Amino acid sequence: MPTPKQNPYEKLTKLSKRAAIYASISHLLAWDQETKMPKEAIGLRCEQNELITSLIHKEQTSPEFAKTLCSLIDIETGAILDPTLSPRQMAALREWRRDYLHASKLPTKFVEEFAKATSAANHVWQEARPKSDFKTFQPHLEKIVELNQKKADILGYQDHPYDALVDSFEPEMNTATLATLFERLKFPLMTLLKMIQTKPDPDVSFLEKDYPHKKQIDFSKQLLIDMGFEKGFSRLDESAHPMCVPIHPKDMRMTTRIHPNNVLSNILSCAHEGGHGLYHIQLPVEHFGTPLCDSASLGIDESQSRTWETIIARSLPFWEHYFPILQSYFPEQLGSVSLDDFYKAINIVEPSMIRVDSDEVAYNLHILLRFELETDLIDGTLKASDIPEAWNEKMRDYLSISPKAHSEGCMQDIHWAMGAFGYFPTYTLGNLYAAQFFEAFTQDHPKWTERVAKGELHFISDWQKQNIHRFGREFLPEELCENVTGHPLSEKPFIHYLENKYKPLYRL
Amino acid sequence: MPTPKQNPYEKLTKLSKRAAIYASISHLLAWDQETKMPKEAIGLRCEQNELITSLIHKEQTSPEFAKTLCSLIDIETGAILDPTLSPRQMAALREWRRDYLHASKLPTKFVEEFAKATSAANHVWQEARPKSDFKTFQPHLEKIVELNQKKADILGYQDHPYDALVDSFEPEMNTATLATLFERLKFPLMTLLKMIQTKPDPDVSFLEKDYPHKKQIDFSKQLLIDMGFEKGFSRLDESAHPMCVPIHPKDMRMTTRIHPNNVLSNILSCAHEGGHGLYHIQLPVEHFGTPLCDSASLGIDESQSRTWETIIARSLPFWEHYFPILQSYFPEQLGSVSLDDFYKAINIVEPSMIRVDSDEVAYNLHILLRFELETDLIDGTLKASDIPEAWNEKMRDYLSISPKAHSEGCMQDIHWAMGAFGYFPTYTLGNLYAAQFFEAFTQDHPKWTERVAKGELHFISDWQKQNIHRFGREFLPEELCENVTGHPLSEKPFIHYLENKYKPLYRL
Repeated sequence: MPTPKQNPYEKLTKLSKRAAIYASISHLLAWDQETKMPKEAIGLRCEQNELITSLIHKEQTSPEFAKTLCSLIDIETGAILDPTLSPRQMAALREWRRDYLHASKLPTKFVEEFAKATSAANHVWQEARPKSDFKTFQPHLEKIVELNQKKADILGYQDHPYDALVDSFEPEMNTATLATLFERLKFPLMTLLKMIQTKPDPDVSFLEKDYPHKKQIDFSKQLLIDMGFEKGFSRLDESAHPMCVPIHPKDMRMTTRIHPNNVLSNILSCAHEGGHGLYHIQLPVEHFGTPLCDSASLGIDESQSRTWETIIARSLPFWEHYFPILQSYFPEQLGSVSLDDFYKAINIVEPSMIRVDSDEVAYNLHILLRFELETDLIDGTLKASDIPEAWNEKMRDYLSISPKAHSEGCMQDIHWAMGAFGYFPTYTLGNLYAAQFFEAFTQDHPKWTERVAKGELHFISDWQKQNIHRFGREFLPEELCENVTGHPLSEKPFIHYLENKYKPLYRL
Repeated sequence: MPTPKQNPYEKLTKLSKRAAIYASISHLLAWDQETKMPKEAIGLRCEQNELITSLIHKEQTSPEFAKTLCSLIDIETGAILDPTLSPRQMAALREWRRDYLHASKLPTKFVEEFAKATSAANHVWQEARPKSDFKTFQPHLEKIVELNQKKADILGYQDHPYDALVDSFEPEMNTATLATLFERLKFPLMTLLKMIQTKPDPDVSFLEKDYPHKKQIDFSKQLLIDMGFEKGFSRLDESAHPMCVPIHPKDMRMTTRIHPNNVLSNILSCAHEGGHGLYHIQLPVEHFGTPLCDSASLGIDESQSRTWETIIARSLPFWEHYFPILQSYFPEQLGSVSLDDFYKAINIVEPSMIRVDSDEVAYNLHILLRFELETDLIDGTLKASDIPEAWNEKMRDYLSISPKAHSEGCMQDIHWAMGAFGYFPTYTLGNLYAAQFFEAFTQDHPKWTERVAKGELHFISDWQKQNIHRFGREFLPEELCENVTGHPLSEKPFIHYLENKYKPLYRL
């Protein structure tokens, strides 16, 4: 008796799941490295990473995978070859094809060269940044720009080589669309920022008192539980940089960083990483290993984290509930502070040299600056050696501040050393999506402020699950945006959100 | 120009290292599962383990590996084919061949069936043990005995099927040698135990006071540092069962368990796991991935942990230094206790139902019992259904106690549920090797008690490195024993050690 032929879609799912399990191991290695690994183990860890990464690539491009994929979708045109499949299955195939093309286009030799160059650059950057030694870093940046140009050529693009790079992080996004959106953002942001700068700063001194480590951790663990995390499938640890490592919907690992003289940083980090984490625990776990159990894009993923970090955790209703709780954790530090003063302090707008320390108003100007420099580097308008001057000039233009050293200027971020050109724009896309999604949320829950002020948070994550999380990559980011909000992505909801919040706050 | 031909030994090393890196990932998965993993992630963890385990097996038996190995050593006879190799390289080849034969003899289908059966048995055992429900566990034990008999047939043996099983854990050891050694041990142990039981028990109540968690951890972390562990390449965590996970000589992870009403358990666990850990950090890391960077056997590995746990950490000179320190951690609990009373209390001999809670005198009688039952099960003299009665009878004979329930009797250990027949004897071998090695150590360091009493510990681990650790698997356990001590393994040093220690302690 011949063995019954396996359904090709099931077979593809099985093959894809194997790659996903290797990826989950890779995530665990990353989490362990940042949180628990003894320092001296780094050599072994690099070898472990290298092997697992190459296994993932091998699985994603194996002849068996390719053959099965080609039996279901036309690799050239994207046409579905089995009309009996469900729309979700067709969407999964569309995304599998995207990933396959991306993985198979880049030759192994190029991937290895890229990995080697970024590993070296990363190492040099770690050493050179504290010394603001751009000269030593420059040849590495040159090499990485060159490799990204090559990558763009290999992946292919229509108008601008940067299109190919952005598309790797944000499917179907391109340079022209970004440039238009960002250009429309720039002036309103600069205007709002300048207006705010004419006003006196709120008092923030009480945020910088001595806040004991353990109590900070305890508060943020409670917050994560309130957001919907249970101990059984998540954990919170500490690392040098806060992160969310989505190993699996049932194994979500978030990290935070405790600054003993800053009560806010840890709370906002946990809200941010918790926002990412909620997305990934609310993905449809039954589709684990397929594109249906993955976030729609980096920008959409960032929109979920920014919703929690900024729209919720920097809002007045949130603190109507949580401020008395925070006061009970820190009575000496906050007992005599009013909710109003606390709310003003945590929303201080004060341009910072450092992107990650920026307030909501200035943040996206940091991204615009990087986007403009990246596109110019990639199309050759700008040379790596021009970066320090170009950086400082744009900082003066957009934020009216000047870095005193490259460590707080063009060398502050790890992204270029990692080779991740095209990544930065997804941060601003995240903010725009967040504001636009939240307008739709507000229509569904016009009285959300009252519920949040009572300590309810679950109805927010439920809404996110219903409208965004449960679809995984079924819809492209722009489709998802239209489905949820009825409109294509626009900068308007974000500007509207900022003006509505900061004009009254600063009495403008 | 043709590429220069790679040296086959180097090639074998490279291939073997890949398997070792996968094994290091497998170790990390195990460590994470016991210490950090959210509970709900267990399903994914099983899938991760399955994939990595099959990868390791694939690497160890790949045609490329086999071909390279066969070019250096005759697989049938073990004859070395390249006479220019060094003795160390030849020894490595001998061990590679052993591992290859072991890995390649067992068909994948059998390995899968074994894994499935033990996974099911493990699950049932976890549920049935607390209820002392042997009937439910019995069919699983029957299946596992049957599979071990099959395993022995596949692996091959000369005299007794159990030989093949023991040999997997303790190379070149066999049932007859074990039976002789154990028979010689039995009477002296039972005699010493009976003599001690005529004497009054020391007071141990102060060991069972309230010992705060954090201080217990702090004390054992200090002990591990004193033993030679640095933070850069090791860590200590907590888990349900103490263990040492030797991921790599530069990534050593030990765990302990804190009992709030038992100050000793954590200390001895840390000394024990630290003893394993020291072995693995002192292996020649430059040979990582080859048999030269692995412990000689389970028995030799256990000898290193038992040296630290029993011969050192239960000795008077050790506590001459550490008792005042322990008192400073716990002044209320131990401030009024004398060193002499403490030393007597931590060496109380009191037969326990539970192997892992046993004192040094009774411990090996627990192992003898298991060895006798295992050999009888494997050669068919005993049926699984006879186990409870046979167990209880032997407990009465050897230890003069009777389990009230199977949970503290034949169902107490996980080994059978894990399918690990032939493993138990390595515990007693560890004790015998430890005592015999320590006689040699004492000849080299006749004044060791004075140095330990001053808090010196490094000279012990230095001696272990010089005489044992640095060789990895270069020598077979019996060769190593002869090299270090000048004699084949004997029960005499151990009996001598026990009598020398316990006769004065109990005034016999």
